[in-house]
Amino acid sequence: MRIALDAMGGDDAPLVNVAGAIEALQEHSNLEISLVGDRQVVDEMIDKQGYSGDRLEVVEADGFVGMHEKPMDALRQKPNCSIANCWKLMAAGQVDAVISAGNTGGVVAAGLRTRLFLKGVKRPGISVVLPTVTGRSVLLDVGANPGARPEHLAQYAIMGTVFAREMLQVESPRVGLMNIGSEDGKGTPFIKEAHDLIVQGPVASNYIGNIEGRGLYQGEADVIICEGFVGNVVLKVSEGMASMMMQRVAHQVLGSLNGEKSAAEEAFGKVGRSFEYNEYGGAPLLGIDGVCLICHGSSDARSIRNALSTALTFGDRKVNQQIVETLSVQAAANG
Amino acid sequence: MRIALDAMGGDDAPLVNVAGAIEALQEHSNLEISLVGDRQVVDEMIDKQGYSGDRLEVVEADGFVGMHEKPMDALRQKPNCSIANCWKLMAAGQVDAVISAGNTGGVVAAGLRTRLFLKGVKRPGISVVLPTVTGRSVLLDVGANPGARPEHLAQYAIMGTVFAREMLQVESPRVGLMNIGSEDGKGTPFIKEAHDLIVQGPVASNYIGNIEGRGLYQGEADVIICEGFVGNVVLKVSEGMASMMMQRVAHQVLGSLNGEKSAAEEAFGKVGRSFEYNEYGGAPLLGIDGVCLICHGSSDARSIRNALSTALTFGDRKVNQQIVETLSVQAAANG
Repeated sequence: MRIALDAMGGDDAPLVNVAGAIEALQEHSNLEISLVGDRQVVDEMIDKQGYSGDRLEVVEADGFVGMHEKPMDALRQKPNCSIANCWKLMAAGQVDAVISAGNTGGVVAAGLRTRLFLKGVKRPGISVVLPTVTGRSVLLDVGANPGARPEHLAQYAIMGTVFAREMLQVESPRVGLMNIGSEDGKGTPFIKEAHDLIVQGPVASNYIGNIEGRGLYQGEADVIICEGFVGNVVLKVSEGMASMMMQRVAHQVLGSLNGEKSAAEEAFGKVGRSFEYNEYGGAPLLGIDGVCLICHGSSDARSIRNALSTALTFGDRKVNQQIVETLSVQAAANG
Repeated sequence: MRIALDAMGGDDAPLVNVAGAIEALQEHSNLEISLVGDRQVVDEMIDKQGYSGDRLEVVEADGFVGMHEKPMDALRQKPNCSIANCWKLMAAGQVDAVISAGNTGGVVAAGLRTRLFLKGVKRPGISVVLPTVTGRSVLLDVGANPGARPEHLAQYAIMGTVFAREMLQVESPRVGLMNIGSEDGKGTPFIKEAHDLIVQGPVASNYIGNIEGRGLYQGEADVIICEGFVGNVVLKVSEGMASMMMQRVAHQVLGSLNGEKSAAEEAFGKVGRSFEYNEYGGAPLLGIDGVCLICHGSSDARSIRNALSTALTFGDRKVNQQIVETLSVQAAANG
């Protein structure tokens, strides 16, 4: 598999991107990487970090989408920026995957305008893996498609199911619809329509119905479907809350200790990292004809390496083929 | 002030409700309470807990809305249930406030059908006080009005401002709109319209614009406005996440300790309680002509007592009069 890695995306780019790429190449002999970015800077870093081999190439790009830029404006002003060029490589069939730790809106906007959608997919959605009381769950869409239609949510139920089964090895993933009550008939007309479509669709047998917000981190479902605006808010609220809680709890608990303070500090650090969702190797933009993984802006070399490994697995497990097949079952049933 | 307290609402009702009521009566000489519920059961509990005085009366009710019942169905089947009778007392002018720790949907549904709205209010909204890195913030609406219109959100900005100023003593509360990006022009057409209305309204000078989910617990604004579906999901996700995190963190950290384990356990308990939002004396249903506070189902006697005190303060601080005045400024400005 050849992967286009956005060399310029992320808080510590291109340093950790180059390091992560080299680590992944050492780990996987079937991997080839196109590092997309400022050739001079990236070449220098490769030289410094030392890589000799022919599975790493640098592809020139002109600028990048900054973390605080407006994605659409930036893409208009810099049509050959690093993330745009990554997607162009995939659209031209020169790579099988795109990975970026850059501005999420930029990754998605540059991707959606290539229209590289899987057959039958109406709108791609970003899916994240979150820790729960019982293990981990998949939440989608977390913001690729704010203002989604009910049929998009029904497709997310299918995509999330395939993803959880193949990538998290959940044999028969329970699918839940995020709602404001767990009983049938709860919620807005929008959410009721999504519910009805999932009930009629190919993952109906694993559909456990509505779940409330509380159920997300309690592990009530393996796959939780929500509208992109809601999912984005939920994900970012969670990040802010985790950070606030760790800070407050650590302050209070460490303040109560004397001799064992450093042991507790170490334990806090370890469990704190388990709440960082970039641990899971990037968030896939599902529904793309190819692989697209979005890494957290704060990614380090290990996160980049994890994402490169995840992309390989994503290809090996034929996630996309299965999504297309299951969608076609739904299409056949509907028509 | 006379308050109708739903004696039957909550996981530990009516025991803690009666206890909290008696405590509050001892604390506040200007308080009178109507305990609404099963007269025989409630009378027995009052006898057992010992109250002698004339500021506590029991008002008969026939059944109650169970925590897992569908509110509308339950209210239809039990028209004289405890929460319905509380609202009837307020509609008849016999009490100034309604407090319940029962089924939230039931409290809201029973209230909305009395149409006891403040002058100018289109839709009441539930507001909660949440802990943040820097202090605490108000989030509304958390579910009274799922499927809200933009003008409802603009009114929430006004109600939340008055509430934060008068009840949390924030002199000049910063108002933020929950969105999927912080820049102007972000989000769905719905949220852009809400943004425009707030900008044109009477709290515009304190409006800091869009905030992302991450900003909620980081204390970026004192008042955060969101649509009821989103707010409900955010609140319940937060509850589930707090519980999951405390469990995981405590497990990991306590497991790393020996001699100081019990000190750490005590600190965990203390900080854990600070994340329980019922600490703040109930969530007000703002926009009601009267006071309505919704307590968490897991309320204990102290939470009930806190809510009774909060209701008194709410009246003293003339929150409702100020909401009406500010709304009338907006109405005048809009022509």
